[in-house]
Amino acid sequence: MDLFEKTVQSREIFRGRILNLRVDRVVLPDGNESTREIVEHSGAVAIVAIDENKDIWLVKQYRKAVEEVLMEIPAGTLEKGEDPLECAQRELAEETGLQARNWQRILSYYSAPGFVTEKLHLFLASDFIEGKNNLDRDEFLYTVKMPLDKAYDAIFSGDIKDGKSIIGIQYACKLLAGG
Amino acid sequence: MDLFEKTVQSREIFRGRILNLRVDRVVLPDGNESTREIVEHSGAVAIVAIDENKDIWLVKQYRKAVEEVLMEIPAGTLEKGEDPLECAQRELAEETGLQARNWQRILSYYSAPGFVTEKLHLFLASDFIEGKNNLDRDEFLYTVKMPLDKAYDAIFSGDIKDGKSIIGIQYACKLLAGG
Repeated sequence: MDLFEKTVQSREIFRGRILNLRVDRVVLPDGNESTREIVEHSGAVAIVAIDENKDIWLVKQYRKAVEEVLMEIPAGTLEKGEDPLECAQRELAEETGLQARNWQRILSYYSAPGFVTEKLHLFLASDFIEGKNNLDRDEFLYTVKMPLDKAYDAIFSGDIKDGKSIIGIQYACKLLAGG
Repeated sequence: MDLFEKTVQSREIFRGRILNLRVDRVVLPDGNESTREIVEHSGAVAIVAIDENKDIWLVKQYRKAVEEVLMEIPAGTLEKGEDPLECAQRELAEETGLQARNWQRILSYYSAPGFVTEKLHLFLASDFIEGKNNLDRDEFLYTVKMPLDKAYDAIFSGDIKDGKSIIGIQYACKLLAGG
């Protein structure tokens, strides 16, 4: 069975600042038709920034969608055509003031492929020059530095509940455990 | 500084089958106003199903949003008011035919809290009775069983690129390594 769904109609519902919404009419593998509601997002980067003491840099910010202050790894939205690594370097500097001498790509993944196009690129950064942060006009956050093993525990206590941060912290713990 | 953003206006853009979209006008911590585009989703469950040979059950399905066949852990959308564990048991049986005797909550997280309300509940399932799957009318997928360590490698080769699956596989690897 070929799983592909052919689009027979695409209807734009909304064109916004950070996302668009469209509804596609598709032909299913059995020949029947259905609709798919799809949120278009330009993608994002997130940074696992670990210093020489195995402390990880986090940011606390209010997330309107979930009506909570969340603790997350630094991150930001890709501009159209922007290189993910350059975006990660810019976002880390903007949010934390850090410039890292070492950068390494970890992996890329889809945050919610059932209904969102967003692809997220995760990077590992280390060996820092500290500076002053420089936030966007509508961005308000605190930076927090925390031992990596405490951040790992925070995943399971519920103090960290952001997907990209959970992936990045699990990765860093395994890496630094030498596993 | 209080990071909270007060909503002064909320405008519904779209009400759909699996998501709604609204745009909120908010007051920022500095007193200025901005808008937040918010996708409302009822939440979901996902299941890390591991058998006695340390094989993990995965499903391959076409994801229209990203126009690819993805390999993911079994998952499904919560119905309004539904208990996450009951939903996980139903979805695992529907997608794989498996009934598990052991269930354990792993963690809950937000898939994309910058713009989506979706909370995802991850469960670990083991000790199975195998049966016949029973898919939704517009659901087409294959089940795949794979050694857990191969699934872990697939995160970094790019063969597995779904957020919930990456979180679940990382967790299971650490658990079964006794870490």
